[in-house]
Amino acid sequence: MQLKSFSIGIDIGGTNTAFGLVNRRGDILVQDRLHTQDYANPELFVQAIYDNLKPYIEQYGKSQINGIGAGAPIANHYTGEILMSANLLWKGAIPLQRLLSDTFGLPATITNDANATAIGEMTYGAAKGMKDFIIITLGTGVGSGFVANGQLIYGHDGFAGELGHTIVVRDGRLCGCGRKGCMETYASATGIVRTAMELIALHERDPIPEHEDWLLNVFSRGDEISSSGIYKAAVTGDPLAIEIFEFTGKILGETLANAVAITSPEAIILFGGLAKAGDFILKPTKKYMELNLLSVYRDKIDIIPSGLSERDAAILGAAALGWNLTH
Amino acid sequence: MQLKSFSIGIDIGGTNTAFGLVNRRGDILVQDRLHTQDYANPELFVQAIYDNLKPYIEQYGKSQINGIGAGAPIANHYTGEILMSANLLWKGAIPLQRLLSDTFGLPATITNDANATAIGEMTYGAAKGMKDFIIITLGTGVGSGFVANGQLIYGHDGFAGELGHTIVVRDGRLCGCGRKGCMETYASATGIVRTAMELIALHERDPIPEHEDWLLNVFSRGDEISSSGIYKAAVTGDPLAIEIFEFTGKILGETLANAVAITSPEAIILFGGLAKAGDFILKPTKKYMELNLLSVYRDKIDIIPSGLSERDAAILGAAALGWNLTH
Repeated sequence: MQLKSFSIGIDIGGTNTAFGLVNRRGDILVQDRLHTQDYANPELFVQAIYDNLKPYIEQYGKSQINGIGAGAPIANHYTGEILMSANLLWKGAIPLQRLLSDTFGLPATITNDANATAIGEMTYGAAKGMKDFIIITLGTGVGSGFVANGQLIYGHDGFAGELGHTIVVRDGRLCGCGRKGCMETYASATGIVRTAMELIALHERDPIPEHEDWLLNVFSRGDEISSSGIYKAAVTGDPLAIEIFEFTGKILGETLANAVAITSPEAIILFGGLAKAGDFILKPTKKYMELNLLSVYRDKIDIIPSGLSERDAAILGAAALGWNLTH
Repeated sequence: MQLKSFSIGIDIGGTNTAFGLVNRRGDILVQDRLHTQDYANPELFVQAIYDNLKPYIEQYGKSQINGIGAGAPIANHYTGEILMSANLLWKGAIPLQRLLSDTFGLPATITNDANATAIGEMTYGAAKGMKDFIIITLGTGVGSGFVANGQLIYGHDGFAGELGHTIVVRDGRLCGCGRKGCMETYASATGIVRTAMELIALHERDPIPEHEDWLLNVFSRGDEISSSGIYKAAVTGDPLAIEIFEFTGKILGETLANAVAITSPEAIILFGGLAKAGDFILKPTKKYMELNLLSVYRDKIDIIPSGLSERDAAILGAAALGWNLTH
């Protein structure tokens, strides 16, 4: 079978959808985006992506395109369907895979965005050559993808890899999923803000040190606390911001130690907004993971940042899915 | 390639080693056992197994034997080595796979006993036809094997599947591994006895109801509390024994709910001494698992007892390993 040269990657978000044409080296040759919510139904949405890419498909040659990969927040690899959030225009289960494949006349496959990122890291990024690794996407929520024996774990129903919804604190913080103590209520961009609010409330009873950027002062000036604000404060040496990252890394590290005991990975890759805090999050995460590991796993597992630029990762991950399609 | 008819399974324990010749249907044609500690070194031990099986190998035909599978408590599938406990005669890493293969003149492979049981269930037992499942062995300790995409997860270094050593209670019970709060300090034959002791201490301050088999009375007569004693008490309706199983099932169910979020299995198979308590352990485990599952996994996952008889499971599991060997 002749290897085809190009793959189409589509990253579908509730707000924006990015898409592009990618070659086997991971160069994005063409890319564009559109507003997901501008389209009254998924048929018009898929048609708009197709219309946008059509000239390039003709230019590079349809026969040279291996397939289409799409990543979306709640996507089922097995059924080919996505579920959009309740507050969006499109309701219920949308047969995205079939729509893509019919509209483009090319094989298509879909998965959730964290799984797409895992395949992207394995194909083009920090996990190149690895057969056993975990990727954690630390965004507004927490996504995860587990790769074992060189294959993504989809699970029986296609919904594997929800490490963000493992319960890590019994009767802990209320999660959007309706349960309490999910990891993503702590180790996400929103979780770290909740931690900040809790610690600020705790420290307000203490005397405030003389530190201009001290988060308590920011807070008392009425500024909104954000995960990037906490990062900026940590860079200036703000002890509260550092304490917030320490606590976040503790929860994340403890969770990872338990996940390691299940799949024994070579490395854990951190991706997404919170991962950009670098050592502020990597160091405590590594420290608490090691402290909680069974001895057989200790000092073996790297925690590394993503090897993909955040701008390109989503399209590359989705496109990487497209390489495994057969015609 | 012609399919060969027989496989040799060896189950190595610290005390006893069982071995047998198995056909593809899972019939154990020949089996025997020996005392592991009767042998001064592993070479003599392997030679004794070989001497025992030699007449049958000749009878059934060496050319018809596909290979040898061996399961042992701390066995590494990748290195082919086992580590015996410190209190045994043989020290350090023992190259079991090479010893077996050299002595028998047949290909050999090894893995830990829980992984062997997982492959046994997949080949001959309750997981026949399943591609994604978890097996939990509830014995003196807790072992586990995870199968995803039809393959056992060995992990990068061969040590995957230690669910018994995930930390489920922060600062909980001290575990033999040196850490605190490991699942196996609660949901094992030894863990359930610790629970009994704790609850008895708690209830001794309460008035003792009039119940002849009431565990408190057994305890006050000076009998030793055992997991089988707790089971017998539960059968007679002893409320404390039922409370002990309820607590054990709660810890196990909560742990399984988190494991499900990682691999999304079709079923979870319980094996070993504690699993023989039937509904006393299955029902609370299922109840607390469901209570703690993310909605997408709810009411989908069976918790079922092993499909292998305990007497045969270890040999069958080890023998099943031998089918995947190539010559």
